[in-house]
Amino acid sequence: MSGTPQPDDLMVKLDNRTLRLWLRLLGCTKLIENEIRTRLRETFDTTLPRFDVLAQLYRFPDGMRMGEISHRLMVTSGNITGIIDPLVAEGLVERVGDPQDRRVYVARLTDAGKAAFEEMALIHRGWVGDLLDGLTDTEQQQLYDLLTKLRDTLHE
Amino acid sequence: MSGTPQPDDLMVKLDNRTLRLWLRLLGCTKLIENEIRTRLRETFDTTLPRFDVLAQLYRFPDGMRMGEISHRLMVTSGNITGIIDPLVAEGLVERVGDPQDRRVYVARLTDAGKAAFEEMALIHRGWVGDLLDGLTDTEQQQLYDLLTKLRDTLHE
Repeated sequence: MSGTPQPDDLMVKLDNRTLRLWLRLLGCTKLIENEIRTRLRETFDTTLPRFDVLAQLYRFPDGMRMGEISHRLMVTSGNITGIIDPLVAEGLVERVGDPQDRRVYVARLTDAGKAAFEEMALIHRGWVGDLLDGLTDTEQQQLYDLLTKLRDTLHE
Repeated sequence: MSGTPQPDDLMVKLDNRTLRLWLRLLGCTKLIENEIRTRLRETFDTTLPRFDVLAQLYRFPDGMRMGEISHRLMVTSGNITGIIDPLVAEGLVERVGDPQDRRVYVARLTDAGKAAFEEMALIHRGWVGDLLDGLTDTEQQQLYDLLTKLRDTLHE
């Protein structure tokens, strides 16, 4: 062993409240996200990124440019194209000219895509309800309020 | 338009409290995670998955099997190998025989790897402190307690 601090010593120093809070926040999110990922695969044979893209497109019925989708989902445009292309092939998404700028295309849900997303979204909402059911209504409201304050301070 | 519900109608139906809570939890986590990702890149020219692997190895000074690392970080073994190989090439990680089973190898931090992680971990802790600083000590404790209860119910 060299003269660097022993792991145990440093972990005590690192194990302060704020770091523990962040790791707990991250841990809860990952647990729920992974459960939803598993259920999407088992129930709908689909992936979370694909579900997220459909959800974004559902919120913008007039269509979205690739760059908008990737910005909102915080993933690269290349990955978005890799998700959109199969959705187009399956008839769930269509590419149409942007009415505001004829040179660019937007992706938007077809009627079949809307129906497919709605079916998944209702089931997904039920899963989320189940997963958060361990907290009382009051606790859920407290958690929401604290996270809202946190988000507001992060945006400042 | 077909006979499917209009997007606006369904979004109202979907916009219940539990779903909003999940999206707020996910949003806060992603905001902080992306900020940390950016700072790791700008400050240490490194990635979050790489930092996470070093953090895991730091917690297990005797080394970890690839499968253990991928299980704990919830990513595929192939991805872990793609992170470990460059760390070995840079002298931050070494592969050694598992004392409990000579047929398998474990990855563990070298002294240089320990020192590199400790430097990053201390700075990282400061970032986390800054990012959560918008909440008072009391609010941080409340948030931690609520998330702990949520995690416990998720594990049941």
